[in-house]
Amino acid sequence: MKTLPVDLGSRSYDIHIAPGLLDRTGEEIRKVCPRAKRIAIVTDANVEPLYSVRVEDSLEAAGFDTGLFTGPAGEGAKCATHLAALWEAMMHFGLTRTDAVVALGGGVVGDLAGFAAATILRGVDFIQIPTTLLAQVDSSVGGKVAIDLAHGKNLAGAFWQPKVVLMDPETLNTLDDKTFSDGMAEVIKYGCIADRDFFDFLCAHPTRGEIMANIEHVLYTCCDIKRSVVEEDERDTGRRMLLNFGHTIGHAYELAGNYETWTHGQAVSAGMVAAAKLGVSLQITPAQLPGRITELLSAFDLPTHISCDATTYAAAICHDKKSAGSDVTVILLDSIGHAIGHTMPSAALVRLANSLRV
Amino acid sequence: MKTLPVDLGSRSYDIHIAPGLLDRTGEEIRKVCPRAKRIAIVTDANVEPLYSVRVEDSLEAAGFDTGLFTGPAGEGAKCATHLAALWEAMMHFGLTRTDAVVALGGGVVGDLAGFAAATILRGVDFIQIPTTLLAQVDSSVGGKVAIDLAHGKNLAGAFWQPKVVLMDPETLNTLDDKTFSDGMAEVIKYGCIADRDFFDFLCAHPTRGEIMANIEHVLYTCCDIKRSVVEEDERDTGRRMLLNFGHTIGHAYELAGNYETWTHGQAVSAGMVAAAKLGVSLQITPAQLPGRITELLSAFDLPTHISCDATTYAAAICHDKKSAGSDVTVILLDSIGHAIGHTMPSAALVRLANSLRV
Repeated sequence: MKTLPVDLGSRSYDIHIAPGLLDRTGEEIRKVCPRAKRIAIVTDANVEPLYSVRVEDSLEAAGFDTGLFTGPAGEGAKCATHLAALWEAMMHFGLTRTDAVVALGGGVVGDLAGFAAATILRGVDFIQIPTTLLAQVDSSVGGKVAIDLAHGKNLAGAFWQPKVVLMDPETLNTLDDKTFSDGMAEVIKYGCIADRDFFDFLCAHPTRGEIMANIEHVLYTCCDIKRSVVEEDERDTGRRMLLNFGHTIGHAYELAGNYETWTHGQAVSAGMVAAAKLGVSLQITPAQLPGRITELLSAFDLPTHISCDATTYAAAICHDKKSAGSDVTVILLDSIGHAIGHTMPSAALVRLANSLRV
Repeated sequence: MKTLPVDLGSRSYDIHIAPGLLDRTGEEIRKVCPRAKRIAIVTDANVEPLYSVRVEDSLEAAGFDTGLFTGPAGEGAKCATHLAALWEAMMHFGLTRTDAVVALGGGVVGDLAGFAAATILRGVDFIQIPTTLLAQVDSSVGGKVAIDLAHGKNLAGAFWQPKVVLMDPETLNTLDDKTFSDGMAEVIKYGCIADRDFFDFLCAHPTRGEIMANIEHVLYTCCDIKRSVVEEDERDTGRRMLLNFGHTIGHAYELAGNYETWTHGQAVSAGMVAAAKLGVSLQITPAQLPGRITELLSAFDLPTHISCDATTYAAAICHDKKSAGSDVTVILLDSIGHAIGHTMPSAALVRLANSLRV
């Protein structure tokens, strides 16, 4: 088992990575929640039939009473209506302040369950068991939890750190290729922004099979990069924005496809290529860099170009008319493995993105 | 102006108490929110016509854009539906992470606005402008914010400290006598649990007129007691429970009246007398103490006895069947001005309360 400690003072926690870890859920949670009697397991309709029984059995063997809360699969579950239903169900289950909530699933489950844990009874212990690659390398680490509003994604939420994150890489075997690649976009992002050696490692192992043969190294490396950024900037007021490489333009692509055509990872993939091209035109990024990123992303069947019009760029970058006159910070690479924040007028970024047809 | 600093490390803030302070809202908020552009003012249908224009004018004179969000008056506003509507309205208003939310009203407004502030965009700055006596001496201080669920009151929420609390005692002049007395129950509670001299002061000033003639002293003393308890136990895991004197039994009375017959302060008033009688029967509380409390509460037309059956006591004290076998900590007085937590089996407390016909 690989263990990565995240140092956030009184909110510190460990990330454990091990094949078969699902079956040790109970004993690992008992270590961090010694007083808990009841565990509310939040999952979705896709994950429940695959993994819920193993997690329940392990928790019950460790002496916990378990309750299973299965929502619909997909981003739609991250809404105020489902949150309120979850709050009521947790109270019906008899959850108390010394009990805990487990998120078993991908990023949507983690965000919804985490926000419920942060707020039910003004906050109870929370455990992340991410089962997708995207959740393992990104959303389960760092403590950001949220639901979507009609006005946009992740607009109501909290910072609520887990007591422990349990990653079982074997859960990745049940992902389809598209969902696996979705996570690879974020894996490649970490190489781009913070670790040239890791980028080179990925270039040397450009298939799902080769990644899975080295999955503990891949998960550990990605989480270690996110850990170092989160430790410096837990509440996302500074360095944490480097994690947004590919996300500013990627947000425009998600919007262009009405959040249906492109997954988050696909939009970020094309967004990273776009940001690389923007960086070249601004003379910050070396000229050969967009080609290198494009090649690696393509190896995982990720899109490297998505069509988008100026209006959509403006909507995504300026958010609303009121901030149209303000500046935006876009994340650029000055080399593979090193990102910087580049602040420029929102309108100038929109014009540049549109003129480059990125 | 009296100022009381609350020391909670990075979450420290001041409580300012001054007649006419409403008209200085803008300049006081500018001091603690130097970067804010927009202020969302949350209020209710009772308070809006009385005070919103003065607060808006003051904020706009200090350079803020203001948005007014007026909900219905009464506990019903503290629900998930209104919270979700408030989230959407705040985004429509264009609130950003550097902006702020103001609660202008009583405890319900403070709880709802505070929870919205704690969660919109994962948390923005929050300012309390309490306009009822109950809110000024209790709910606006300490950072507890919440909404009610179908399963009970204050079940979903957060700890979210304000950046500043602005108390204008002149707002108390528009309260009817019943609402004023509602707050007096909590005022008297502070004397009971922590300050014999203050209890004696209240006995010597047993009318609304005499209290208002000394209102800055009264507000300061109550907030100072709450401050000292909250500083020791911000997240309510220990000493803060002393503030619950009168509340355990009081909760049964609120339930007995279906949260309609009795206000919170009325239920707490009778609950304090009941707790004093329980303390006498357990040989913890001096025999003459219930009479002294009864006399003071009666001077403010607060009830000192409410009928309640054993089933309702059990429902309030045990919460649900699953905790019927567990212990409960009831707050008792060993003298006027000194409270202790007394832990006993829930079922024994129910039996005792019922047998004493408190």
